[in-house]
Amino acid sequence: MFSPLCRRLVPQRRARVRTSDNMASQQEQLTLHEAHLSGNSYKVRLTASLLGIRIHKLIDYNVLKQETRTPEYLARVNANGRLPVLQVGNDTFLPESNAACYYLADDPDSKANLIPRDRLEHARMLQWMFFEQYSHEPCIAVLRFWRTMVGVDNLTETQKAQIPGKEKQAAEVLDVMEHHLTGREWFVANHVSLADVVLFAYTHCLDESGLDISKWPAIERWVGRVEGLERYVKLAD
Amino acid sequence: MFSPLCRRLVPQRRARVRTSDNMASQQEQLTLHEAHLSGNSYKVRLTASLLGIRIHKLIDYNVLKQETRTPEYLARVNANGRLPVLQVGNDTFLPESNAACYYLADDPDSKANLIPRDRLEHARMLQWMFFEQYSHEPCIAVLRFWRTMVGVDNLTETQKAQIPGKEKQAAEVLDVMEHHLTGREWFVANHVSLADVVLFAYTHCLDESGLDISKWPAIERWVGRVEGLERYVKLAD
Repeated sequence: MFSPLCRRLVPQRRARVRTSDNMASQQEQLTLHEAHLSGNSYKVRLTASLLGIRIHKLIDYNVLKQETRTPEYLARVNANGRLPVLQVGNDTFLPESNAACYYLADDPDSKANLIPRDRLEHARMLQWMFFEQYSHEPCIAVLRFWRTMVGVDNLTETQKAQIPGKEKQAAEVLDVMEHHLTGREWFVANHVSLADVVLFAYTHCLDESGLDISKWPAIERWVGRVEGLERYVKLAD
Repeated sequence: MFSPLCRRLVPQRRARVRTSDNMASQQEQLTLHEAHLSGNSYKVRLTASLLGIRIHKLIDYNVLKQETRTPEYLARVNANGRLPVLQVGNDTFLPESNAACYYLADDPDSKANLIPRDRLEHARMLQWMFFEQYSHEPCIAVLRFWRTMVGVDNLTETQKAQIPGKEKQAAEVLDVMEHHLTGREWFVANHVSLADVVLFAYTHCLDESGLDISKWPAIERWVGRVEGLERYVKLAD
């Protein structure tokens, strides 16, 4: 065990070990394989911007044209055929948007503090990140994709039939967030964390999902708080 | 910054700070609010068992009877109305199965090593944990719930119509896992991690989802590897 003295010297962000086969620091070239207007891709760019990390290259894919399902993409970038994927250097490909955000924020050279060091607060941050992927994204992001990207007229009958259910789920998810944010500034701890960043991506453009954010005033104020952060960048930037 | 000497003294698992309002160590009473036969609940029990941590109390809920949607449950245990929830002491409730697993494995007193300390391997573990919640659980666990818990005859027409799509997704998810496990023993690093534990929960009982595991031989061998771990416990235990 390391001593209490040593523990006190550990900075508030966590220190991750770099091994010889993992020199993938921000000194290495970062490429983001993305769909530029997707919230999942935006999360990674927003995280990088808040951290002051430069993503050197953005490669945009057209999901509607199945560009992430080509044999080349599946073999080299992501066998799961999804976006975004953070590429570190030439050969390291990291899928899953929330894992990519975590990787960036976990940079031991970063001065920002998007990952709480406290054990319970860290678990609560992950709790909201899993909530985002399991409960939030499958209704709020899907409604946005259908309404704004595909267009309701182009949906299949099965998709159209799912809209009322997705709207009901979306309202429940937003009620949970509203309840949590009432009396709080941030989702976890007393500062912005990855929980806020990943939940912000699809929440700040609720109108594109066909939802009215003014029904959830604590969420609306929190959106303004994120937009006021130093180094904030917009989705379309 | 702490010195290289100090860094070397940090054990291979990460050291999380305990603050005064976060003395929630395994010395405190752990309660699991669960549905005993759900894979998401099993994950938390399996993680605890592999770590040698005792969960003092299990409280079983009947999801089919909406027992997690009562005003009491929503107000006290989880506003999101889902299971499992890990309760630490009297007043700390941690929803989201994968966040609860992380919290347990993050115990600074634990001698087990279910969380890789290396930065990239840690991000890859989270990648597979998000994959599990976003891609794996919504088809494989839902098929199991419909077929084994609810019964196909009791499904709504909308649910029945979704079965072929869920089966197609499940096969794709399993193909991704099979591809990854070919030539590897574990999902991440060279040892069992939370990525294996959370993916195992619904994968080891594929037959209950109506799927034949023998079509994915690398997965079948990996299932045997998890079942051979010291302190392994079965879902029904």
